[in-house]
Amino acid sequence: MSSQGDGIAELPPPPFWAVIFTSERGESDPSYDAMASRMTALAASQPGFLGVESVRGADGIGITVSYWRSLQDIARWRQHAEHQVARQLGRERWYRRFAVRVARVER
Amino acid sequence: MSSQGDGIAELPPPPFWAVIFTSERGESDPSYDAMASRMTALAASQPGFLGVESVRGADGIGITVSYWRSLQDIARWRQHAEHQVARQLGRERWYRRFAVRVARVER
Repeated sequence: MSSQGDGIAELPPPPFWAVIFTSERGESDPSYDAMASRMTALAASQPGFLGVESVRGADGIGITVSYWRSLQDIARWRQHAEHQVARQLGRERWYRRFAVRVARVER
Repeated sequence: MSSQGDGIAELPPPPFWAVIFTSERGESDPSYDAMASRMTALAASQPGFLGVESVRGADGIGITVSYWRSLQDIARWRQHAEHQVARQLGRERWYRRFAVRVARVER
């Protein structure tokens, strides 16, 4: 699979926040691709969204880094109803393993 | 190309630091693959190295997140002689574009 967004995000000067989502996909599932595209578009429309970089390798490991203006913006996106459904499906069906790290970009 | 390291890093409780390196590769070059493997192994032997997650997609976009105990550890790795040679080659030969973000992982 390829990167989403435009590859390398154009971002404002720090500080801002990054959510680093690393995951291992299970078997291929067309419903995943549709949901991933939808979530990328939906995230990009949220308040405080600054950009996203996303890559998945042939071995199923993927890294998505989304960038946000504040922790509050991240919390709001986390609580978005449609995103919560997607996260639940991710946990139950799509990901073998994943990790989420929230970090403050300093430079 | 696939992920390097073991996919998803096992990390200690925060806080620690992340270096998010996003890049776009130019044409395929076997010398790049050898250097990338060497740099991953060399980074893993540095003081303060906690883990790495690295993926490159079929479209040439790659994300490598390395995790470190402190900013001092990151600065030391940045100044490592062999790493400096690799970074110079990366700028001149291997990457069309890249961005480096240094972030403090909070949770």
